[in-house]
Amino acid sequence: MPSLRKELPRGFRWAAVKAGIKASGRTDVAVAVADRMASAAVMFTDNQVVAAPVTVGRKHMAATQGCVKAVVVNAGNANCATGAPGIAVSEETCRKAAELFGCAAEEVIPSSTGIIGVPLPIEKLTSALPHAAERLAHSNAAAEAFATAIMTTDTKMKVSQATVEAAETSVRIFGCCKGAGMIGPQLGPPHATMLVYLFTDIAAEPAVLRELLQGRVEASFNSISVDGDTSTNDTVLLLASGASGVKWSDAPRSFQDDFCDALQHVCNELAHAIIDDGEGVTHVVTLEISGTANDADAKTIAKSIAHSPLCKTAWSSADPNWGRIIAAAGYAGVPFSPEETTVTIGGVKVFDRGVRAAGYDEAVVHEKMKQREYTIAVSVGSGPGRSRFLTCDLTVEYVHINADYST
Amino acid sequence: MPSLRKELPRGFRWAAVKAGIKASGRTDVAVAVADRMASAAVMFTDNQVVAAPVTVGRKHMAATQGCVKAVVVNAGNANCATGAPGIAVSEETCRKAAELFGCAAEEVIPSSTGIIGVPLPIEKLTSALPHAAERLAHSNAAAEAFATAIMTTDTKMKVSQATVEAAETSVRIFGCCKGAGMIGPQLGPPHATMLVYLFTDIAAEPAVLRELLQGRVEASFNSISVDGDTSTNDTVLLLASGASGVKWSDAPRSFQDDFCDALQHVCNELAHAIIDDGEGVTHVVTLEISGTANDADAKTIAKSIAHSPLCKTAWSSADPNWGRIIAAAGYAGVPFSPEETTVTIGGVKVFDRGVRAAGYDEAVVHEKMKQREYTIAVSVGSGPGRSRFLTCDLTVEYVHINADYST
Repeated sequence: MPSLRKELPRGFRWAAVKAGIKASGRTDVAVAVADRMASAAVMFTDNQVVAAPVTVGRKHMAATQGCVKAVVVNAGNANCATGAPGIAVSEETCRKAAELFGCAAEEVIPSSTGIIGVPLPIEKLTSALPHAAERLAHSNAAAEAFATAIMTTDTKMKVSQATVEAAETSVRIFGCCKGAGMIGPQLGPPHATMLVYLFTDIAAEPAVLRELLQGRVEASFNSISVDGDTSTNDTVLLLASGASGVKWSDAPRSFQDDFCDALQHVCNELAHAIIDDGEGVTHVVTLEISGTANDADAKTIAKSIAHSPLCKTAWSSADPNWGRIIAAAGYAGVPFSPEETTVTIGGVKVFDRGVRAAGYDEAVVHEKMKQREYTIAVSVGSGPGRSRFLTCDLTVEYVHINADYST
Repeated sequence: MPSLRKELPRGFRWAAVKAGIKASGRTDVAVAVADRMASAAVMFTDNQVVAAPVTVGRKHMAATQGCVKAVVVNAGNANCATGAPGIAVSEETCRKAAELFGCAAEEVIPSSTGIIGVPLPIEKLTSALPHAAERLAHSNAAAEAFATAIMTTDTKMKVSQATVEAAETSVRIFGCCKGAGMIGPQLGPPHATMLVYLFTDIAAEPAVLRELLQGRVEASFNSISVDGDTSTNDTVLLLASGASGVKWSDAPRSFQDDFCDALQHVCNELAHAIIDDGEGVTHVVTLEISGTANDADAKTIAKSIAHSPLCKTAWSSADPNWGRIIAAAGYAGVPFSPEETTVTIGGVKVFDRGVRAAGYDEAVVHEKMKQREYTIAVSVGSGPGRSRFLTCDLTVEYVHINADYST
């Protein structure tokens, strides 16, 4: 289990309690509270079907224009496909939290993750909130408790930290997330069940945070897939407390660049952690697609390969069946010529402009693919488009996990 | 094993031999020959990467404008990603067949199915052809031998027949196909590795056959999916010998309608047989999507559900996890409102305009889903669009089959 080794961003407290929503009896309600009001930016799922907390969260962010006092997350129940009663449950959660934390209900962002279509037991959730409020603390233990309570089928807590040096002080970033299945995020400007919470103590306007977040999410959370199933609940929330005293608008360009890099680093680490802990995953595969007309085309090819059951099952046994890779690229809907296409696996060329690479040795590639992590590079021409996309194999264990979920 | 019970279309002979291309040592070269020249229509895969026989087949059909004397199919090797040498192999196959059957090389259509990227041993194939020629026969045994030799991971021979009564005679249709994995056909006007061969003794111009074929394929082979992996080799070939003496152009409208229905029936039976014999399949699921703006949108939603690993794994254990179904519909990219959406499984309503259906009983739905075949109906509104799409579950056995394919 990774643990927190750097300073946490100032201005936040965290807590987690057991509300009895998870069948396992583990902690299942996580709360984060800003000492003062935090600036916020959020991205929710692009799914046409969204959970009640996403609907409520969108409304609250629109109402406050990006002011957040508290976040309340429950795991074990997605509060999705629960209709008007589900919306009422999310709103009631925010009202109770607002009373406890001295803010408006609109200044609370709710999140839920777990099974779809089952009413969320509101009494369990709201009666747990006072206990959570009592335990709020600015400590590694509290932040880790938060990061642990949001887990569902995850086997590991997923956290990442960064520190950015400013003139006389430093700015801190702490991120945590959950997600192991139903992972194929498509986050839109204002978009798993991937839940990601990013905390920083920089002082920045919500508009700045939105731009920062959108820029970081595209190359991280929007470029990963376990199963391609885009959740109804995916949420990435960035909160800035301002408690470092460092103002984005006054900071020199070099600091801004460093902050962007640090935030990208945290997003990338968390995105990697999601794939690495993906349901049944035994291999993490980075797809590097290049040579398309534009980046969007490259990503389309990457997703086609990442979602191909034949590619994913071959990876599970370190099978260098690269024919499946070019077939999946070929049905992506992006025009390209196999005669201009090359494919390398773990740095070894397997397909070279229309044919099997000269000197191709299956045993060599098989050895490369036995590693837990490797890269498959597909170049389909000389265009400037490229995509780096993180995905994983499809194993018997994935099928077991998902065939046995609710029964 | 289904067997042939009706009269075969006149004017064709079939044969199959062992060429040593399949590792199993089973029959792997199948030949069909028209006594006189047959009219033909063909649809090949829409994949950007196509096998050599598809390239050669397209060229031959263009050169002859739809005149076919013979079809030569090999199983065990897809002759794909084999470059110019692969093309030469396909062309050489056609030349040898042309010598044997007394026609031009362009009047021979080659097909291949099996592993991608491995050179097809031309000597094995061409030296087998004379043996096949000796065995050609117009018999059930010969037609079944053809249908059996084209199989790869298929566990069953797939055949279908129909007879259409004409004024003083009858017109016969015989179809056979192979395909169990890499099944997500996207066949275009002149589009698995699904291979489908349709034989009839009607007399019709290639232009008529093309129109007939395209109309039938959309609702059958283009509306099925095992794994969504569109092959580089998919081929549907319709051959008309004319030997019944019934001319399409002279036939009454009522006969034409009957013939269309019969051809659709054969295509539907073969398409169903492919899903029923899909790799690792334990449940065949018909998706009936309705209420979209148009049929294309309905099919997009159907494919999103049919390709969702979470839906497919839930079906494998008869798990009524309908939240996964609405989530997959929701990320298809087609706008709809959950509040106007209903979902039934095996005739039992599970989701009703935004919420779990009143009186929902998981045990009842679980029982319905234990059947090998059932229907999931999703209505997303009041639009006229609809799609009927046939798919299957994703099982541990599918993973085993495809993780162990070439190693």
